[in-house]
Amino acid sequence: MLIEPKILKGFRDFLPPEAAARKNIQHTLENIFESFGFQPIDTPVLEYTEVLLGKGGGETDKQMYRFLDQGNRDVAMRFDLTVPFARFMARNENDLIIPFKRYHIDKVWRGENTQRGRYREFTQCDFDIVGTDSISADFEILLMMYRSFEALGISDITIKLNHRGVFNRFLELEGIQEKSTEIMRSIDKLSKLGPDKVRELLEAEVGTQSAEKILTYIQPKDNYLDTLSMITELSGGENEETLRLKSLYDGFQGLEIQDRFFLDSSIMRGLDYYTGIVYETFFDKLPEIGSVCSGGRYNDLASLYTKTHLPGVGSSIGLDRLMAALQELGRAGSSAGSADIGIFCLNEKLSTYYHFLAEQFRREGFKCDVFYEQQKLGRQFKAAEKKGLPIALICGEDEQANSTVSMKDLTTRAAYNQISLQEAISTAREIIKRINS
Amino acid sequence: MLIEPKILKGFRDFLPPEAAARKNIQHTLENIFESFGFQPIDTPVLEYTEVLLGKGGGETDKQMYRFLDQGNRDVAMRFDLTVPFARFMARNENDLIIPFKRYHIDKVWRGENTQRGRYREFTQCDFDIVGTDSISADFEILLMMYRSFEALGISDITIKLNHRGVFNRFLELEGIQEKSTEIMRSIDKLSKLGPDKVRELLEAEVGTQSAEKILTYIQPKDNYLDTLSMITELSGGENEETLRLKSLYDGFQGLEIQDRFFLDSSIMRGLDYYTGIVYETFFDKLPEIGSVCSGGRYNDLASLYTKTHLPGVGSSIGLDRLMAALQELGRAGSSAGSADIGIFCLNEKLSTYYHFLAEQFRREGFKCDVFYEQQKLGRQFKAAEKKGLPIALICGEDEQANSTVSMKDLTTRAAYNQISLQEAISTAREIIKRINS
Repeated sequence: MLIEPKILKGFRDFLPPEAAARKNIQHTLENIFESFGFQPIDTPVLEYTEVLLGKGGGETDKQMYRFLDQGNRDVAMRFDLTVPFARFMARNENDLIIPFKRYHIDKVWRGENTQRGRYREFTQCDFDIVGTDSISADFEILLMMYRSFEALGISDITIKLNHRGVFNRFLELEGIQEKSTEIMRSIDKLSKLGPDKVRELLEAEVGTQSAEKILTYIQPKDNYLDTLSMITELSGGENEETLRLKSLYDGFQGLEIQDRFFLDSSIMRGLDYYTGIVYETFFDKLPEIGSVCSGGRYNDLASLYTKTHLPGVGSSIGLDRLMAALQELGRAGSSAGSADIGIFCLNEKLSTYYHFLAEQFRREGFKCDVFYEQQKLGRQFKAAEKKGLPIALICGEDEQANSTVSMKDLTTRAAYNQISLQEAISTAREIIKRINS
Repeated sequence: MLIEPKILKGFRDFLPPEAAARKNIQHTLENIFESFGFQPIDTPVLEYTEVLLGKGGGETDKQMYRFLDQGNRDVAMRFDLTVPFARFMARNENDLIIPFKRYHIDKVWRGENTQRGRYREFTQCDFDIVGTDSISADFEILLMMYRSFEALGISDITIKLNHRGVFNRFLELEGIQEKSTEIMRSIDKLSKLGPDKVRELLEAEVGTQSAEKILTYIQPKDNYLDTLSMITELSGGENEETLRLKSLYDGFQGLEIQDRFFLDSSIMRGLDYYTGIVYETFFDKLPEIGSVCSGGRYNDLASLYTKTHLPGVGSSIGLDRLMAALQELGRAGSSAGSADIGIFCLNEKLSTYYHFLAEQFRREGFKCDVFYEQQKLGRQFKAAEKKGLPIALICGEDEQANSTVSMKDLTTRAAYNQISLQEAISTAREIIKRINS
């Protein structure tokens, strides 16, 4: 009786092309993060439920994979990377250099309804700068976000930026700051419900006049500086926070990337958590998929676990959504993980000689896929094609006897018969160079 | 009331230096695996308990993190990467090119007794070639193991090799093959109990005469070929399997790595699972830590889940033990993850200019750590030292005004005042080059 090799709903196997593409994306991001001096951390997949729940009450509580372990401890699998990071900072604050900048790319689990196309096991990529209020950190997070997508081959993105502090000043001026949570919740529904419905919600909340003013506030102008003027005026004139938005813009301009940043006064990210800049990132070619990278500045990361004040700024990429978007844009690297050269097996007696040849190519930086079994050449060519190998190395007893190899460019079908190993290496180099160009 | 930021026993936080070092090791291994045409896969952390249990009965059953999920499904966290791989092959066999070679590096969980210095969350690195019986695959696994450790900076390793098929022929010749499981179990205790105790066990099992012969068999000679002669004779003369051991040796010799392979006729790895070569890997400088990479050839990977016959050969590295060993050998890369250049903050008004400077260095391949807050230089030097940064870039209003920077080599304390950006880049390049040499 066989056991059915099934997997749980909302969970996935990743076969090589996709697993390799995901790994490539992750490495690209890691390289960018490290070039900014961000460092990796790792935390346990399982934590005490009490630690993950925090104050509790969120939607995620019910979605947690929670159980009693062998020692009867109430434990749960992490449902995001933010809560474990807060716990991590509190636990290790004495061993870390503050300000601390970390990245963490790994899986999280939520027992969500999979009917909405959601997964129960998915991958997040978080990066944060903790322990500083400085504008320099705000600028760095935004710059690093842009460089990350650029490195993934997507330069045409728009990072929509807003400032919760400025909006709060505006609400105070209007005398409606005590309704801020409800107001932001309504504004966050803008793209879902449309402006008319949001106007209704706001009017019910704060009256016609204030609703009108809010609607003016959240209607950005065409360009960053005009929007900044508008919200500066509505929030009572220039202040530290509007000046910060201006400095950010000047910095973007210094790097000639100001066109990628749009001051969108309707972005709220209505979590109580955020106190400064907030932002979302959209692919200009795929606005419909929504934000691929969002976050903001918060006043205190780990107040549930420590008295140490830890202001910071951070951002999160949903790797599954990013992957889907890159696939749609043809940027996911479909040949990711394939080798460069297939070394055919013409004679099993030459098995270890094939590995000897492979080693000569590996030493020159080529990835080699040695074929194990003596089969008809036609079958081996088919396998090479299926594997996406661009080059076949063919070596029988003749070639071995006179220390040559034969090679075939599988992309053009050009054949190179009985050439020296040196010639073969330079030919392979040219083929790979041509393909990559 | 603060929540205590504690973690579960047997679980770990990894702070940047160690997290970065682990990532580096993983990347090094991945690069080697991919240069051999191995590809990554990924499988769910949670699986149906029924799937993970298989036939069940092992020690791991009780150690599984097992629970009922929100949908009342009996689920468990994977306790190794082998069972999920077997399930993966059965589920995806029609979408894979066979022979299939994959690697998988990820965490697994066992609710073990932590008093033996074991972790409940640990990382395994598995690589397998499935769907072929060929000697070429055996050779490739062994070669790739050697190249992996070489790439990690450890060339002085010994891979101890044996062949279960040859040993089985010997047992048949002795007429004691039906006791093979018990015999191998006794032999596996050799390093723990010593030869005298093992002799007793064997005598109890098969009598004095056979015990004597077994003890002769499992006593390797000084060199590969002498041991091969000895076991060839004891197993009834040359056969396909002894010839395979000979061919492997010839292949190692062709690559001049034969000294790293020791034919150790006492290696059994007493799992019913293995049918061909079996092997363990020892660091010559740290034999006491035991094998860092073990595995062997099996006849059928996924017979619990599919009728498709899937012979293969594979190996597994315990990343935690490997990491501990590399640390002990000073090879774990302690500065892993640090940036190259700290860009000091002399004036917060220059914040975005510092990021502009950082970008110029990043473009040249340097990792830059921009300091966010204006602080006394002494404090910034101290922070740079703590972070292990080799270079400080110092830029005040004077430098900005005349488009220069000042730079300090923190390893020699050499100062370079008000030099051009181009000079600074080439100076930094020389400093990093000197450090890495």
